[in-house]
Amino acid sequence: MDPTTKINIPESDLERIVIVGGGFGGLKLARSLRRSNYQVVLIDKNNYHQFQPLFYQVAMAGLEPSSIVFPFRKLFQGEKNMYIRVTEVTDVDPVAKRLQTPLGHCNYDHLIIATGADTNYFGNERIQEHALPMKSVAEALYLRNNILDDYEDALTTPEYDPRQELVDIAIVGGGPTGVELAGALAEMKKHVLPKDYPELHIEEEVDIYLIQAGDHLLKGMSPESSAKALRYLEDMGVKVLLNSRVTDFDGKAVFLKDGTSIPTQKVIWAAGIKGEPIRGLPESAITYGNRLAVDRYHRVKDCEDIYAVGDVAYMEEEGWPQGHPQVAQVAIQMGKNLAGNFKRRKKGKELTAFSYHDKGSMATIGRARAVVDIPKPSIHFGGIFAWLVWLLVHLFAILGTKNKLFVFLNWVVNYINYNQSLRLIIKPKVK
Amino acid sequence: MDPTTKINIPESDLERIVIVGGGFGGLKLARSLRRSNYQVVLIDKNNYHQFQPLFYQVAMAGLEPSSIVFPFRKLFQGEKNMYIRVTEVTDVDPVAKRLQTPLGHCNYDHLIIATGADTNYFGNERIQEHALPMKSVAEALYLRNNILDDYEDALTTPEYDPRQELVDIAIVGGGPTGVELAGALAEMKKHVLPKDYPELHIEEEVDIYLIQAGDHLLKGMSPESSAKALRYLEDMGVKVLLNSRVTDFDGKAVFLKDGTSIPTQKVIWAAGIKGEPIRGLPESAITYGNRLAVDRYHRVKDCEDIYAVGDVAYMEEEGWPQGHPQVAQVAIQMGKNLAGNFKRRKKGKELTAFSYHDKGSMATIGRARAVVDIPKPSIHFGGIFAWLVWLLVHLFAILGTKNKLFVFLNWVVNYINYNQSLRLIIKPKVK
Repeated sequence: MDPTTKINIPESDLERIVIVGGGFGGLKLARSLRRSNYQVVLIDKNNYHQFQPLFYQVAMAGLEPSSIVFPFRKLFQGEKNMYIRVTEVTDVDPVAKRLQTPLGHCNYDHLIIATGADTNYFGNERIQEHALPMKSVAEALYLRNNILDDYEDALTTPEYDPRQELVDIAIVGGGPTGVELAGALAEMKKHVLPKDYPELHIEEEVDIYLIQAGDHLLKGMSPESSAKALRYLEDMGVKVLLNSRVTDFDGKAVFLKDGTSIPTQKVIWAAGIKGEPIRGLPESAITYGNRLAVDRYHRVKDCEDIYAVGDVAYMEEEGWPQGHPQVAQVAIQMGKNLAGNFKRRKKGKELTAFSYHDKGSMATIGRARAVVDIPKPSIHFGGIFAWLVWLLVHLFAILGTKNKLFVFLNWVVNYINYNQSLRLIIKPKVK
Repeated sequence: MDPTTKINIPESDLERIVIVGGGFGGLKLARSLRRSNYQVVLIDKNNYHQFQPLFYQVAMAGLEPSSIVFPFRKLFQGEKNMYIRVTEVTDVDPVAKRLQTPLGHCNYDHLIIATGADTNYFGNERIQEHALPMKSVAEALYLRNNILDDYEDALTTPEYDPRQELVDIAIVGGGPTGVELAGALAEMKKHVLPKDYPELHIEEEVDIYLIQAGDHLLKGMSPESSAKALRYLEDMGVKVLLNSRVTDFDGKAVFLKDGTSIPTQKVIWAAGIKGEPIRGLPESAITYGNRLAVDRYHRVKDCEDIYAVGDVAYMEEEGWPQGHPQVAQVAIQMGKNLAGNFKRRKKGKELTAFSYHDKGSMATIGRARAVVDIPKPSIHFGGIFAWLVWLLVHLFAILGTKNKLFVFLNWVVNYINYNQSLRLIIKPKVK
């Protein structure tokens, strides 16, 4: 398609709001603007919304991608004034108020940037080339295929050292993603791999490393939860390396700052994220972590009619002097507040400044264990009760009754028989 | 891996049976040889068995691939003397009794070729290059992504003619696969597409063609069922072209022998299959449809200790002077009989000549309609009762309780809300 053409969206008398990105923030915004007096255009690279908190279960063959994603078109069936375009935004021209995409350009009256964040390799290209990220369901699926492929290869690798490179797994980053992955891998090592690969000596040969730069796991959670998570993981046989900074990974071994190295072909990189703003915005708008500086009304600095919500937005608020955590709750609340402001604007009402209501945070560690922090009143708890809370919260958060049902059934079946059946290396055949 | 090395499988005192291909025939054979006095090696390109009769539902976003495939390793957990290797067999040396694979070579005492059949383009390379096959779950998934991608593209294609190429679909081949696909597409056109793509004029613009070279559909079924299938499809708006032979397809239009052509970018090729024997077998062993000539004991002609079962095998039997139909039932019965013969051989018993017991055939056409033929006593019926029989038979045939449960639930949900939710373009991200 000729990029000088206009993207095919009917012109209308309504003001056009273009939302780029259908993650938690963008989707909440779009849904809150249903039946509003705006024409809403949602642009996303994929034709579905992704439920990121469960990516690690897709990677671990516990859930199918389809159970944790939801097609946008189904979500907005019957909505008038709502247009979905599956494409990538390559550029924005804030003066002409126009976006560029491979399908053509698209003008806007109001632009919302909800492009989220991507894996941050902190400039290390070798790590970027060799390590496995997990910031999309497609990457989670690729990771799953990779792990299974390597175990198949290990079977036909009789020499000890090359086999170690195939079976050992290092996870870099001790945040919720790293911790949850490590726990799930430890379960898989204990319950699934010995049955699937009796020819390998799983118990002795397979090592799971969790490498964390700081001196504790789950930064941002309470010291109690952090200590509990560490104990749980060590109980399960995960080798947790604290105060260990990864300096390099060449696809064969991961190198640490203290001079040691771990031979492995598989490094899962969950060590950091960076904002993904759109090209064409003023440089002054970009701040810490490659995020867009926004005011309490989500307006991007030095721009007009451009807003940002979610992981890509950096907003300072009383109690959050270094910005909000980059989590789903913040994105959802921001999306909701901004949608509310658009509606209030139409009604001539005063806009509401955003204020984050922290509902708490949690992480699950393997089978029947989790940690939960609730800020007000300050409560921390762990163990099986925390795990049940984790299950319920996530189940309710997943979009769609059918997805809830299928995730729930998967969890029940996996819990009973300790044995996910999704260990399938399926790659859509490209001709 | 150096191909001159030996594939890593422990040597044992037992005779080694190597099965190439874990489809219906190979898998039945392998399962029947559990706890037998042989070492059994199963080699397949994939790490899972595929349930081919439901590929079309994967392509139509009605089922997830994972619901209709089953990992081999899970199937054979706890089995001793059973080895699974995920690789491709490139060559056989019948004299040295050795197979070649990218993982190394593998010797055998008995070789069973159960490699099945692949799409037959009858030598037309242009069709092969542009048409979409559906002989694996990976191809079905690719087809699904392709259809959805094209509808997204149609949205941003304002001109009528290029849009027609994107939205129209031609299926070539009026066998069960073509008929079932056409029925499912017609349902999708009626119930799903208008809701997902209100911007397109689905009812007027989308045409589904089913192109059949012969003068009736479902060759091999009764004239009654064939006529019923035609009527059902035409009721649903499918344009069935009988006595129409496709001569070419250039990716933009499909050309028929009568000189007409249909503009479409999407041709699903279900017009024929051909056997996929392994390279290195004597030419005299290869017969009609690129299949391997076998005797009633599954022995491949002019070979020693080499057997073939399923779609790749061509056996003449009284009542089947032109060989058996290439369907699951034949493969399963062949696998079972051959496994029995191996066991009988160990016990010094006489071998059993294969005899096909035809249980009948069926095809489903869209929602709540199917046709069923039962040979003895000769019964044909259609409509909703046939559809329920079809559902039950397929549900019971799917491997694994969890798969049965998930397929059943998917069917119930899709039946109630007319609205499959798996319209997801998910491609594992390749770095």
